[in-house]
Amino acid sequence: MHIACLDFEGVLVPEIWVGLAERTGVEALQATTRDIPDYDELMKMRLRVMDEHGLRFADVRAAAEALDPLPGAREFLDWLRGEYQVAIVSDTFYELAMPLIRKLGLPTLLCHRLTVDADGRLSGYRLRQPDPKRHAVRGFKSMQYKIVATGDSYNDVPMLEEADLSWFFQPPENVVRDHPHIPVARSYAELQAAFTAAKSTLG
Amino acid sequence: MHIACLDFEGVLVPEIWVGLAERTGVEALQATTRDIPDYDELMKMRLRVMDEHGLRFADVRAAAEALDPLPGAREFLDWLRGEYQVAIVSDTFYELAMPLIRKLGLPTLLCHRLTVDADGRLSGYRLRQPDPKRHAVRGFKSMQYKIVATGDSYNDVPMLEEADLSWFFQPPENVVRDHPHIPVARSYAELQAAFTAAKSTLG
Repeated sequence: MHIACLDFEGVLVPEIWVGLAERTGVEALQATTRDIPDYDELMKMRLRVMDEHGLRFADVRAAAEALDPLPGAREFLDWLRGEYQVAIVSDTFYELAMPLIRKLGLPTLLCHRLTVDADGRLSGYRLRQPDPKRHAVRGFKSMQYKIVATGDSYNDVPMLEEADLSWFFQPPENVVRDHPHIPVARSYAELQAAFTAAKSTLG
Repeated sequence: MHIACLDFEGVLVPEIWVGLAERTGVEALQATTRDIPDYDELMKMRLRVMDEHGLRFADVRAAAEALDPLPGAREFLDWLRGEYQVAIVSDTFYELAMPLIRKLGLPTLLCHRLTVDADGRLSGYRLRQPDPKRHAVRGFKSMQYKIVATGDSYNDVPMLEEADLSWFFQPPENVVRDHPHIPVARSYAELQAAFTAAKSTLG
């Protein structure tokens, strides 16, 4: 068995903050790592905008709870978990992701934590470490595993580059244009075929 | 969230090779890491005894498929997976463990691989790395996680010593006697209380 490292939002589930933007009509919250590659910059903007609109942790949590996995994601993941050990490696936060993780059958999730004030204000976040997706792959490599990875955006590139084999999954055109050396899978069927072929390649 | 590293056989499921011993009446296969702490020595004995009795991979796989998780294991694990990210860190083999892993709801498993001849003889095994349980904990530490661990036997001691907090779970008396500095949980209720307290301790 090898390890499959999967990005979360955009690969298995919709973008949680986009869900919040749609529920609240606050357009600035539509931005994702596809638009603002610097994650600290993106998160600082999100927290500032939430404060400006009086949005609280409960609002973004409710937006997360209202979401469902992408069509076909659960079936793909259930298949993959019989073929690989799966770790979802994400820049999301446990406090937001766990409802969706339950809907996916509780796969392992490596991500970050939010900090919430006593009065329910989303006051900050703690990134686990710098360059967390690359370090997750390195951590599993230190356990002598081979790593196969997929993701859809700029923040996945260190993970995809560090993995033994990797593809983008349904990336936007700007991401593909900036990283033309990384192959692309455009459906779960293509991803399943790629993971199957990777098993043969890696032995 | 922190990472919970759990041993497999003796903590969540019965000893697979003991199941094989009981199905076949081959008494030498009753030995586990509780009796023979050197895992290479134990595995070489198992393979030799299987050859002597004409037992094949299909026999030990069938023994594994006939087993069920320990009473209360699934409920404990389901609870734990909401509180921690869980990795089962075991010296078992994927080829034997996966039926039981499915019965437990597909938690992540870090273990080893068997090699099977074209004619179905269990010809060998590949340990992932030396001191694999310690390295699993170190790998997660390199991802900046805190680790809470439990196991029942000698081969768990490096994992329990490397973790931030740890306990034996229902260990035999010789294991406790040889490692009196490691605390002991004697039921899933005690283990649940220990993991709950560990969350407060680690923050």
